[in-house]
Amino acid sequence: MHSGRKQEDGERYQAILETAARLICERGYEGTSMQEIAAACHMTKAGLYHHVQNKEQLLSDVMSYGMSAFEQEVLEKVRGLADPVERLRECMRLNIHLVTGVTGGCSKEVIIILHEHNTLTGEARASIDGRKKRYVRFLEDSFAEAMRMGRIRAVQPTVAAFSFLGMILWIYKWFQPGGRLTATQVADDMVDLLFTGLVTPPGVVPGAPSPLSRERPPVSGGAS
Amino acid sequence: MHSGRKQEDGERYQAILETAARLICERGYEGTSMQEIAAACHMTKAGLYHHVQNKEQLLSDVMSYGMSAFEQEVLEKVRGLADPVERLRECMRLNIHLVTGVTGGCSKEVIIILHEHNTLTGEARASIDGRKKRYVRFLEDSFAEAMRMGRIRAVQPTVAAFSFLGMILWIYKWFQPGGRLTATQVADDMVDLLFTGLVTPPGVVPGAPSPLSRERPPVSGGAS
Ligand SMILES: CC(C)CC(=O)SCCNC(=O)CCNC(=O)[C@H](O)C(C)(C)COP(=O)(O)OP(=O)(O)OC[C@H]1O[C@@H](n2cnc3c(N)ncnc32)[C@H](O)[C@@H]1OP(=O)(O)O
Ligand SMILES: CC(C)CC(=O)SCCNC(=O)CCNC(=O)[C@H](O)C(C)(C)COP(=O)(O)OP(=O)(O)OC[C@H]1O[C@@H](n2cnc3c(N)ncnc32)[C@H](O)[C@@H]1OP(=O)(O)O
Repeated sequence: MHSGRKQEDGERYQAILETAARLICERGYEGTSMQEIAAACHMTKAGLYHHVQNKEQLLSDVMSYGMSAFEQEVLEKVRGLADPVERLRECMRLNIHLVTGVTGGCSKEVIIILHEHNTLTGEARASIDGRKKRYVRFLEDSFAEAMRMGRIRAVQPTVAAFSFLGMILWIYKWFQPGGRLTATQVADDMVDLLFTGLVTPPGVVPGAPSPLSRERPPVSGGAS
Repeated sequence: MHSGRKQEDGERYQAILETAARLICERGYEGTSMQEIAAACHMTKAGLYHHVQNKEQLLSDVMSYGMSAFEQEVLEKVRGLADPVERLRECMRLNIHLVTGVTGGCSKEVIIILHEHNTLTGEARASIDGRKKRYVRFLEDSFAEAMRMGRIRAVQPTVAAFSFLGMILWIYKWFQPGGRLTATQVADDMVDLLFTGLVTPPGVVPGAPSPLSRERPPVSGGAS
């Protein structure tokens, strides 16, 4: 097989992955058949099996593609930030953009990673879970570092990490592009919500302007 | 059909729902067949269809059962609390207990509601979504009330509501009973995390004891 043929096969396989991701994202993994994927690729089922061993391999490749996009667009961009709170804030913002599709076109692969968290088995499962676990550890370590520096209160790093993840990864279940709030508004508000905290610090006048205030005009307490 | 027979049928149907919920929770809705549900109930497929119209009806009934458990064990218990911040804190705590199975035995029905958010169609979908939406509105209204009272900072009520929901509903994807933290520890820490906020308020000495501190002994700043 010369390299022109190889490249053609590679591009063909990319197109198959793209189509498979679209169908699996819409209908779920168990709800999508190889027959349907083949038809959507304008191939016969036998033709599809020329490119891919089985349906689980296809799911595993879609997820690997999504994890690489995540690592490139989120993790690698924030790993180097020296301040742990800045690192976490920027990580949250970029991850929300990835899930909502602001970053590139790989939100369907990411949604499949999130929704089908229990579907893969064996080595393919272990490999994806290992990459997810690195992300969880990165968050736990960053929260712990911020605590050691006195930048944030003492909390269980595991609870902080999964609270962070829950807020941003749940978004795929409710957010609709074109709705009342834009993806950027949701991202900015969530970052402020987690890192600035909800409860009014003691001494703050109720109704006074706050950096998060969007909906109400500030209640002026004195002369104006 | 006299009432003894009716009651027997009702009990039988409850047992079928329980078994169906267990299988669907483990394998997903699309990954579970009526044949498997019948076998797990020690019935023939024809016998199962005597009790239930089709698989979607079964899913819809499992979800209704889970929503009723949620409304009874969480929503009704906190609706009457006058203080909106107390109401939200208690709601979060009780909902985490429901998801982790501390409350009763209906966590599998609740997990199915959460995981299969996109599976039902038609009227059954509209009915469950309407009940979910009442919960979202209740949270948005409580956050808005807390803001009007100056109890919390100004945030978008929708972002606050879905952040609250994401933190607690994501738990089904990672939490394992018998792991490092108990369900009660996770619940208490998450409530504090969201409502006390992460960032150290100005003027607080880094390393000083905090109500959230669990892992580190307080750093004593003065005599002792
Ligand atoms: C057991 C118990 C805990 C179960 C529950 O009650 S879970 C409750 C929360 N459920 C979830 O988070 C699961 C996923 N979400 C959903 O299923 C849906 O979003 C529902 C909560 C059912 C609402 O669905 P539905 O009434 O059909 O509303 P729509 O699909 O038309 O979406 C509109 C509503 O979704 C939210 N939304 C979606 N995109 C945006 C956006 N860009 N900006 C602001 N809000 C947005 C928002 O709540 C909106 O409703 P409105 O406030 O516009 O009336
Ligand atoms: C695209 C991108 C955003 C995708 C991602 O990276 S998502 C990353 C986060 N993923 C999720 O939240 C999805 C659901 N979670 C999972 O799939 C899993 O929890 C993993 C993150 C993959 C970890 O799984 P795995 O390595 O197999 O670990 P195990 O299944 O053995 O569970 C142990 C780990 O889960 C967590 N955990 C579970 N139960 C408890 C508990 N009671 N107390 C404290 N921590 C707990 C905890 O992280 C624990 O790891 P250790 O800290 O004990 O090593």
